[in-house]
Formats: sequence, structure tokens, C-alpha cells
Amino acid sequence: MGLTASTAIQDAPGANALERLIEATQNDMADVNALILSRAQSHVDLVPKLANYLIEAGGKRLRPMLVVAAAELFGSSGRAQINFAAAIEFLHNATLLHDDVVDESNMRRGRPAARIIWGNQASVLVGDFLLGQAFMMMVETGDLDALATIARASTVIAEGEVLQLTKTKDLSTTATDYAEVIRAKTATLFEAATEIGAMAGGANAAGREALRVYGLELGLAFQLVDDVLDYRGQADTLGKNTGDDLREGKMTLPVILALAAATAEEKAVIAATLGQADADESAFGAVLAILDKYKVLERTLDQAIGHARAAQAALGALPASPMRTLLSEIADFCVARAY
Amino acid sequence: MGLTASTAIQDAPGANALERLIEATQNDMADVNALILSRAQSHVDLVPKLANYLIEAGGKRLRPMLVVAAAELFGSSGRAQINFAAAIEFLHNATLLHDDVVDESNMRRGRPAARIIWGNQASVLVGDFLLGQAFMMMVETGDLDALATIARASTVIAEGEVLQLTKTKDLSTTATDYAEVIRAKTATLFEAATEIGAMAGGANAAGREALRVYGLELGLAFQLVDDVLDYRGQADTLGKNTGDDLREGKMTLPVILALAAATAEEKAVIAATLGQADADESAFGAVLAILDKYKVLERTLDQAIGHARAAQAALGALPASPMRTLLSEIADFCVARAY
Repeated sequence: MGLTASTAIQDAPGANALERLIEATQNDMADVNALILSRAQSHVDLVPKLANYLIEAGGKRLRPMLVVAAAELFGSSGRAQINFAAAIEFLHNATLLHDDVVDESNMRRGRPAARIIWGNQASVLVGDFLLGQAFMMMVETGDLDALATIARASTVIAEGEVLQLTKTKDLSTTATDYAEVIRAKTATLFEAATEIGAMAGGANAAGREALRVYGLELGLAFQLVDDVLDYRGQADTLGKNTGDDLREGKMTLPVILALAAATAEEKAVIAATLGQADADESAFGAVLAILDKYKVLERTLDQAIGHARAAQAALGALPASPMRTLLSEIADFCVARAY
Repeated sequence: MGLTASTAIQDAPGANALERLIEATQNDMADVNALILSRAQSHVDLVPKLANYLIEAGGKRLRPMLVVAAAELFGSSGRAQINFAAAIEFLHNATLLHDDVVDESNMRRGRPAARIIWGNQASVLVGDFLLGQAFMMMVETGDLDALATIARASTVIAEGEVLQLTKTKDLSTTATDYAEVIRAKTATLFEAATEIGAMAGGANAAGREALRVYGLELGLAFQLVDDVLDYRGQADTLGKNTGDDLREGKMTLPVILALAAATAEEKAVIAATLGQADADESAFGAVLAILDKYKVLERTLDQAIGHARAAQAALGALPASPMRTLLSEIADFCVARAY
């Protein structure tokens, strides 16, 4: 089932796994989407206007689908996963609104970021509203254990974002620092999503732990691929421009690995462009040439593949089922996105 | 026990009530303060640095004191109020961090705002961290009912802030709009504080409702007085400059009442200064003269006094006790701050 950087380009096993996940979760996701829309409502007009602008832009809804898929894996016929999934998506969207303010991003999901239209102020506050609603939906399930998981995740995500911020343009950032950042800011939410999904599905302790590890590893793979795509993706599939991380001074693994391998002259080229919001295509191209020379995008992808395999291995503790197979292929999909 | 604008200046009954509340709650507050400090910790250095900068600047800690006072009113010897109080203070501080970003404030609690030192980005993210920790502390008590109260409050506060934002510089803002804003953005947190305090103290339904209404009315009085002080307070007791609301274009009751009473010429004077960040003292003085002419600060204070009385009336449903008397005098204090 695994894939390698060399064989994946054609015939990647996960290539259409997302479509199959969408199909497999469509009943629960209809309820999740209805709940998302109803909970973005407010008598304060700007709240649903801004929230729905982001929500309707879509995104893959991968995280809430993972919640309901994890619940279905254990045969749930309950309802808790609907609230859990909507809460995870709200927490995710709150993070996006705040991130775009922090990163001064102009684009999100292929459209101008909400902050460009309604300002940083409204983006911060509507993010807070979505966070509050996420907790409301969790409270309504009465599941304190799942609530604790979400509360901890929201704290850890914020810590990860702060850590990333403090490492901006810091040339001494290590691969270990980076691993801590992506675990906290990205993988924690995937981990929480699949863990509380398993809980909603009635998993025993071993099942819950398997899904927790699956989500964590999947999230790491997902972010590593994202960080590769930021250097070589297509603007139309990314929903934003390539080179944003470099221009924002974000110390992602490709640039960390390149700095470690580069000559003094090459380091100077990278340092001169890092964090330059107005760096042009030729400056970006010069950095990309250094990244290519040291094959750091391939090496980053190899790490992503390793995490995708670890996600798949975690599922090995569970009995075989069509949903287990699909979740395994979703790990392949997270890597296949890179090609 | 009540006071009126004319008699309050001297001998206000609530003048030293805050000191007595500090004394009455000191045992629990020692635990609350220790919990606050421990939960502001993080392995990401900037998190406690920024959080403690704000926390150590102090403020009155009125909200957490109200939580433990409400619990003690019902004779609690439990521990839930410690977590509740720390959570309320974290939620409050998260709101302050985000508000200062939204309002582009330079000063907070007599010091440069955190965003001036560490930037808007870190202020948004550390606010998110504090919110997450607030929910963690609530989850640890296992009290789903109190959790629901806090989750709802955090949502309503965000809605209130968005509503206030959309009314910025809007000359058609009504006193009803203003009442909705201050209820949501300020009174909701006081309401939640005294309600969950009563719950921690083991109050019955009537006791809980009495404290909920007490907190709500106290919060309304508190904000009305704040909005008066913004026009005629002293910078050293305010911890910020007078005139900030006017310069930020905030439609508070004094300016709403003045606009309703003013001549066309006076309206133009107010409109010309409203939202002008660089309005000088003479421009501010011209607006203040219009406010004085129509006695709108006094009329705003009269409303504050009305809410303080309503807070005291809510306590009337409960048996007399020294703590009930003190809470009643705290309502006087909230108004006495204006003098």
C-alpha cells in the first residue's frame, strides 16, 4: 500500500481516496454541514456573513470527515460525532481566521482572505465566536473526556502558532523545532479529530489510541506535504500563491534542510529573501534552485511518507474493514497531494 | 443603601467596598492567583512572558473575586470556585488581548499594551492560548452546567464585540444598540462569574438566578461607569487616556445621548472628532463641552445607578449575611468609581 517519491507520481494509491471518503461519510456529513451552517448564525449580521464566507469557500472538510469516519469505523449509530465533527471544523476555521491575521495573508481557499474584506478586527472576533460555538457543541454532547481533548488541543495549537511566530526568520531554527511546531499547530487537531471520532463510535481504549496515533501521524504527513506544496504547488490547487512561507519568513523543513546543506553564498541568498514580503519571482526562483540542488523537497516528502506509513501502521491494530482500508488510503492521499 | 449622582461624591457607601471584598476573599484568591500563574506557564517562552505581563499588571481581579464571593455566599467549602475564578480571569484577559488588537489600543492597565511590545500577532495567539486554558480549567471541575455557561458567555462576548465594531462611527447607533453591546461584551462575563460562583457554592435554583441577575446588572453598571470615566476620568486611575472611546469612534451612551440632543452644528463638531485617532485636546474639549451642556455623563451615571440598584434588589431574594451586604456594597462601589 505504501508509496515512494519515485513511484507515486503516476498511479498513486490514494489519488481518489478523498472522493471515496466523501462518499462514505456523506450521510453524517449532511448533518454536520447543516449543523455548521446553523451554528454560524447570529443576530449580529457580520458574524454569519464573515463565517459563511470562509465556510462556503469549502476547503476539503477533511477534519470533520475524519471524525465521522473514525466513528463509523467502530460502528457508531450515535449522534455525538455530528457535534464533534462540526466543533472540529469550527476550531479549524477559527484558527484559519486568526492565522491569516497573524501571517497577514491575502488569500485563503482561492479567494481574498476574510481579513482583506472585513479587516483584521472582525476576523479576530469572529474567530473567537467560532471557538465559543465549538465549545458549545462539545458541551451539548455531555462528553467531558472529548471536551478535555478539544480544550487541550486548542491550547496546544495556540502554543504551536506562538512557537512558529517566535521562529520567524530565525536561521538557527532546527528540524526538531519544526517538528514541534507542526505537531502542535497541525497534527494536534487531526489527532483530536480521529480520537474523539473513535470515542463517539464507542471504541475501546486500544481503538481510541490507534485512532489517536493515526490522526497524529496523518496530520504530520499532511503538514509536511503542505510545506512542500508551498514551494512547488500550483496556485489554483493551493488556493494561495507558492512562496508564501518563504516571503512570510516561515522556517519550514525545506528551508531548514537547505540552510543546513548550503554553502555560505547560498545561505546568503536564502537569508536575503526569507521574510521579504515583496520578493519577486526571480528571488523566489533563486531559492528554489538551491532547494532543488539539495533535493530538500524530496527529503521532506520522504518524511511525509514515513508519517503516512506510521498512520497506516497504527490502523493495523484494528480488525480489517472497508473503512479501515479507506482510512489507510487517506494517508496515501495526503502524500499524493504533492504530485 | 442606594446613592444618587448628587450625594455620591462624598461619602459614597461603596467607596471602600473593594478593599473589604479583597479581604473577604483573600484565602480563596491566594489559590486562584497561584492557579492563574501556573496555568499561564508554557514551554513556549513567549506565552508566559506575554500572559504574565498582562496578568501581573493586575487590574482589580474583580471578576474572579466575584466568583469566590458568590460561592462563599452560599457557604461553599468546595474547590470548584477556584478553577471557575481562574477560568473567568483567563477569559477576561484573553478578551483584553484581542480587544487591544481590535481597538489598536496603546495602553492597558497603566502600561503599554502587550501588542505594543510583542505585536498584534502574539497578542491574538496568546489570547487563544488563555481561552483554551480557561476551558481546560472548567473541564477539570467536571461541571457541564458551568461549562455551558462559560462557553455561551465566550460566544456572546465575541458577538458583542463584533456588534460594537460594526457600530463604529455610526451616528445612527441607538441607546438600544448600545444596551445590547454592553450587555453582551461586558455584563455577560459578570453574569457568568456570579452564576457559576453560586453554582460552586451549592446554591439552589433561586439562589443561582439571584446571583445571575446580580452579576448581569452589576456588569451593566460597571460598563456604563467605564464609559463615563473614558470622558472624565483621570489617566492614572484609568490606566489609559481619557477620550480613547471618542478617538476610536466608539458609540457609547454619552455620545449617543449627546447626538440625540445636539444642534446640527454641535452634531457636526462631534462627527468631526469621532474616530479621529489623532484628535487633540482642544477637539476633545469641544466635544466634552457639548456632553456637559446636555448633562449626558450625569444621565449615563443615572442609568448606572439604576442597574446597581437592580443588582442590589436581586440580592434581596437571599437571606441577610455579611457577604450579601458586601456584594450589595460592591454595586455601590461600581458606581462610586465614577467620583
